[in-house]
Amino acid sequence: MSNGITVGELARHLGAEIVGDPKGMVRGAAPIESAREAELSFLARRKYLPYLDGTQATAVIVGRDLGKVEKRPQETALLLVDDAHRALAQALALLYPAEQKKSEIAPTAVVGPRVELGKGVTIGPYTVVGAGAKLGDGVRVGAQCAIGEGCELGAETELKDQVVLYRGSRIGARCIIHSGARIGVDGFGYVLEGSEHRKVPQVGRCVIEDDVEIGANTCIDRGSIGETRIGAGTKIDNLVHIAHNVRVGRGCIIVAQVGVAGSTIIGNGVALAGQVGIIGHLEIGDGARIAAQAGVSHDVPAGETWFGYPARQRTQVMRANAAFLKLPELLRRVQRIEDTLLPEGEAK
Amino acid sequence: MSNGITVGELARHLGAEIVGDPKGMVRGAAPIESAREAELSFLARRKYLPYLDGTQATAVIVGRDLGKVEKRPQETALLLVDDAHRALAQALALLYPAEQKKSEIAPTAVVGPRVELGKGVTIGPYTVVGAGAKLGDGVRVGAQCAIGEGCELGAETELKDQVVLYRGSRIGARCIIHSGARIGVDGFGYVLEGSEHRKVPQVGRCVIEDDVEIGANTCIDRGSIGETRIGAGTKIDNLVHIAHNVRVGRGCIIVAQVGVAGSTIIGNGVALAGQVGIIGHLEIGDGARIAAQAGVSHDVPAGETWFGYPARQRTQVMRANAAFLKLPELLRRVQRIEDTLLPEGEAK
Amino acid sequence: MSNGITVGELARHLGAEIVGDPKGMVRGAAPIESAREAELSFLARRKYLPYLDGTQATAVIVGRDLGKVEKRPQETALLLVDDAHRALAQALALLYPAEQKKSEIAPTAVVGPRVELGKGVTIGPYTVVGAGAKLGDGVRVGAQCAIGEGCELGAETELKDQVVLYRGSRIGARCIIHSGARIGVDGFGYVLEGSEHRKVPQVGRCVIEDDVEIGANTCIDRGSIGETRIGAGTKIDNLVHIAHNVRVGRGCIIVAQVGVAGSTIIGNGVALAGQVGIIGHLEIGDGARIAAQAGVSHDVPAGETWFGYPARQRTQVMRANAAFLKLPELLRRVQRIEDTLLPEGEAK
Repeated sequence: MSNGITVGELARHLGAEIVGDPKGMVRGAAPIESAREAELSFLARRKYLPYLDGTQATAVIVGRDLGKVEKRPQETALLLVDDAHRALAQALALLYPAEQKKSEIAPTAVVGPRVELGKGVTIGPYTVVGAGAKLGDGVRVGAQCAIGEGCELGAETELKDQVVLYRGSRIGARCIIHSGARIGVDGFGYVLEGSEHRKVPQVGRCVIEDDVEIGANTCIDRGSIGETRIGAGTKIDNLVHIAHNVRVGRGCIIVAQVGVAGSTIIGNGVALAGQVGIIGHLEIGDGARIAAQAGVSHDVPAGETWFGYPARQRTQVMRANAAFLKLPELLRRVQRIEDTLLPEGEAK
Repeated sequence: MSNGITVGELARHLGAEIVGDPKGMVRGAAPIESAREAELSFLARRKYLPYLDGTQATAVIVGRDLGKVEKRPQETALLLVDDAHRALAQALALLYPAEQKKSEIAPTAVVGPRVELGKGVTIGPYTVVGAGAKLGDGVRVGAQCAIGEGCELGAETELKDQVVLYRGSRIGARCIIHSGARIGVDGFGYVLEGSEHRKVPQVGRCVIEDDVEIGANTCIDRGSIGETRIGAGTKIDNLVHIAHNVRVGRGCIIVAQVGVAGSTIIGNGVALAGQVGIIGHLEIGDGARIAAQAGVSHDVPAGETWFGYPARQRTQVMRANAAFLKLPELLRRVQRIEDTLLPEGEAK
Repeated sequence: MSNGITVGELARHLGAEIVGDPKGMVRGAAPIESAREAELSFLARRKYLPYLDGTQATAVIVGRDLGKVEKRPQETALLLVDDAHRALAQALALLYPAEQKKSEIAPTAVVGPRVELGKGVTIGPYTVVGAGAKLGDGVRVGAQCAIGEGCELGAETELKDQVVLYRGSRIGARCIIHSGARIGVDGFGYVLEGSEHRKVPQVGRCVIEDDVEIGANTCIDRGSIGETRIGAGTKIDNLVHIAHNVRVGRGCIIVAQVGVAGSTIIGNGVALAGQVGIIGHLEIGDGARIAAQAGVSHDVPAGETWFGYPARQRTQVMRANAAFLKLPELLRRVQRIEDTLLPEGEAK
């Protein structure tokens, strides 16, 4: 937490209009219902507006799209902005600056032969770095990680505790990889010999481009013979599965527990909501959006929003879902028509 | 395993009625189809009744709701109880008393500065405990865990091997956290700047109240600025995802692979079956029950049972599902009505 | 990577017919769109045929079922085979022979009392092996694994880094267990005492038979009092959940993120596609196939293919799904019939 910043300074950083006292000091942030003096809060949804009245926050970021705020506590300043989430993100970066830990290689880290370490690299206790790995400047590796032979990590990339990178994985710059993520795992490939599934050697690799974040316990397989690749700036949540040979484009959002089967190609700027499943060998076009839990079994054209199981274009499915609940009534109506109108023997 | 207990003693502990010999010795437990002499088994479902005839178990707990048992082997005593599952749980606690390991801090554990350890704390090999962490009396930490700076663990809580607690997480008393669980992970929060997703600093924390069990490889995010909180007595299975700012009430049951998106509030005594998904910013009322794989996208009132994708109240969905399979037939029936009755040119 | 093999030798190994120059040297493999000189590629799907024209691969395995190939680059030899995937698997085993690492016990491995190690066992740094465990000949254990007391691992089995085996787990011969897999976890069993969920001691064990592969971060619970068992030759992908007392037969394929609830019995040769969920106490017959994301709540007869949520036989669901999208139109058609034909007061 910082030493604090005045409401006025904060407003200047955020480009916000102040309603209230610019001299209050803010030292941290908290949700609107629990914020206290010297804390900043924010309001981005109309449904939380009633909390404003009772808050003890010293300042509250309010989205202009919420309309005019009628009541506010005397002691609370409002910071009016166009985009409350974005303003909050900026404010948090001011209030909670990243810790500057001094770089060090833990004495218990096992660093293999021919490893290249850039300037200012940090390696936590009990981490194992395989032969020939390259860690760029400012790389921070947590405790108990396992970095396979020949892996490469770009500058300023951070591995949290207990990350595993299989042999030969390449991670770009400024990535964040959370605990329990497994990168470059063998893909799930077998051929049937008689009644036995024989493993197909998985000899490709996994490439993560720059500025990617990967959530806790997420698994990304290596290519079978080529690459599995995650494009720059893509963000992946917890417990996601990405199979071998998948290519994910740039700037995608992949929410928790999504599964993408082998060889599927995902364009740039695609959003996959939670628990979505996509079968193998498909193409998902740039900017497509797939709703939560959808099961995708066909190519999705660029820019479309798909929905449902099996997934189809949103409006089509919404209409069918609404009709779905009228089904029992519809059956009765058709029965009645048949009973009333069809000649005996015709009805069935 | 214990040194054994007689059928008579066991019956007394369970408040069971004995049919058969009370003097047999029981030393362990096994399923009805594989139990042998000196073993206890149990019968809670009618479909497994035929196994009773051939069992070699010395005693079998039988629920009175299964009705009168006609046949049983001469050597097998029945223990009749009202609730077979509950009686089995009690019997197992007698037959398999928890091991009393002597407490010790492994010489390879890395314990940071200002860490406070209660009486009888155990820490396994290669575990790392960050600065300022507090471990209550009788806390047992397995091998290769990573406990972040400033974490707090209540008395008698147990971490199995390879658990990660991110910085500042608070765990109550008597919790059990299984291998690979990740607690207090950064939430999945970004704001768009142009076409780039910029990370929103995740500065809140994760609070687990007393008597919570958390399954293997489950991930629970920290709050973005406030808390993510799991209420006392809630039990969470493997591979579950709980996003930032979620609040789960007391005494809930959350089965494997469930995903709960950000800021959703779950009441007390809620049951979420396997693979359920709940979108963000919803409220799930006390005592609600959500069926397996359901996809919840609206608030669920207290006490209701929801079902399906998109999820709706159970009875409504059951009816519609039944009608769903009659759809092809319904289409044919409507076609026939139109062909028979509508004037030429009207039908479409 | 090997020192290379000629196209002619390769063809002989694969039983392939050569179209082109048998004297070219092949040293590695790559996908058809990125392969270069001295690399082998393959074509198993008609949709990738256009890539053949521009490839720089020295040889390409082509399935005879793709029909006659009209065009190919002069420098590229074709290897015609009946089963391209199988031929590729054989070729990869030649081109990328398994590394022969010398066996060693890392000096930082913690090996408990009464542990039995076979010949040629390898144990990685910071791995902990509990008292009384038995590791067969040629077992390879990665870094930072935790092998519980009394576990048994059959000959030639490999644990990748950061695997956890709970106490008493038994793993067969020639298994591969990937990073973050948790084997023998406590099952999710509670009985209600008043409003509290009381843990049922989980005293059974987990048995993995020979030749099983288990994916990254997959969780398999121990039996409650009996066994959880995975049959020989079964292959399990990443992030799968197998609950207590489940029995999986031989030669099954279980794709990523599948969840199987307690006490369900799965036959031999069953295929469960990605994200399938199966509720507890069911029987899935030999050779059954369950499509991706299906939610199974009834027994599935042997040999059937099921589909959908709730899951039913494939053809039935396909027809109903097709009709589903015609629902809004159907509603309008029935409305029009009623408006046109039913006497006033009858329609509703």
